[in-house]
Amino acid sequence: MSKKYDKLGNDVFNKVEKINSELFTLTYGALVTQLIKDYEDIEQVNIKLEQMGYNIGIRLIEEFLAKSGIGRCSDFIETAEVIAKVGFKMFLGVNAHVGDWDANRKEFHLTIEDNPLIDFVELPDQYKHKLYYSNILCGVMRGALEMVQMKVKCTFVKCTLSDDSTSEIKVVLEEVLSDMIPVGYD
Amino acid sequence: MSKKYDKLGNDVFNKVEKINSELFTLTYGALVTQLIKDYEDIEQVNIKLEQMGYNIGIRLIEEFLAKSGIGRCSDFIETAEVIAKVGFKMFLGVNAHVGDWDANRKEFHLTIEDNPLIDFVELPDQYKHKLYYSNILCGVMRGALEMVQMKVKCTFVKCTLSDDSTSEIKVVLEEVLSDMIPVGYD
Repeated sequence: MSKKYDKLGNDVFNKVEKINSELFTLTYGALVTQLIKDYEDIEQVNIKLEQMGYNIGIRLIEEFLAKSGIGRCSDFIETAEVIAKVGFKMFLGVNAHVGDWDANRKEFHLTIEDNPLIDFVELPDQYKHKLYYSNILCGVMRGALEMVQMKVKCTFVKCTLSDDSTSEIKVVLEEVLSDMIPVGYD
Repeated sequence: MSKKYDKLGNDVFNKVEKINSELFTLTYGALVTQLIKDYEDIEQVNIKLEQMGYNIGIRLIEEFLAKSGIGRCSDFIETAEVIAKVGFKMFLGVNAHVGDWDANRKEFHLTIEDNPLIDFVELPDQYKHKLYYSNILCGVMRGALEMVQMKVKCTFVKCTLSDDSTSEIKVVLEEVLSDMIPVGYD
């Protein structure tokens, strides 16, 4: 399954409009810096980044569905693969990997390779393990998935900016929202 | 000259790392929205966007010089062509055009085609002709050119978001900064 989506992710990334990654990285850095100035409390910055991401995600899902041609996933395992192999490739041009499933298959970890948001970024020590610099990504996933009837919670559990070995997001499926329960969720 | 740089712009854009344009557009929108919340005065938002752009420009110039292989321009006319045909293509993936030169060849207008920053954006009436939504671009140019010894001032003179027919930036060369005056500036 992963190989099929690897190919689809590459195909879709070739199809979308693109801009220079470094310009994006620096613009995102300006946004995070501004929020740190605005809110004294770093936890508020994390929350704000996640909310901004949510608002972005509920709009990006349209482009995702239109360009990828992907329909309803058969279960949350397939959803996870699609996020990692098609979603991350399509929007950030990078690969992500799914792992660490819980026994109920409602929770996994997503490891991001070469996260472009953190290119050239160094966190001052006082922000390490406090600021989830790329927290916008958690919001984007939550917003996008909510539009396809999945209520999820996403949390950064590791970040290379805080000297962890990888950047890792925990994704938990909390609820399937529609009356029409998709096949495979019961 | 323009045709040579058209080709170079395309070649360089193919070479750089890229991300999805819509993700960038929406992230930039979140930044502008945040600044409007922070500063009551729209003129302050314009200034802040320009300053953020300046900080980005002084860093982007390195990537530009490294990836484009462009050395010193022979005069400001060539500089203008390089900005329009290589710079805009390399960072935003779009074309820009140079026109409206003044008699001294120190001032021109840059018309941007399909500015990705304003995709899907609509300005409420109270911001039209007041908010320079894409003003970050003026700052990026000022910062980048300052790093190659040209002090310029960039100002949005038209914006399709304010119902103008095009998006146009006026670029004025105010001073050549180095002791070592580049060839062609005397």
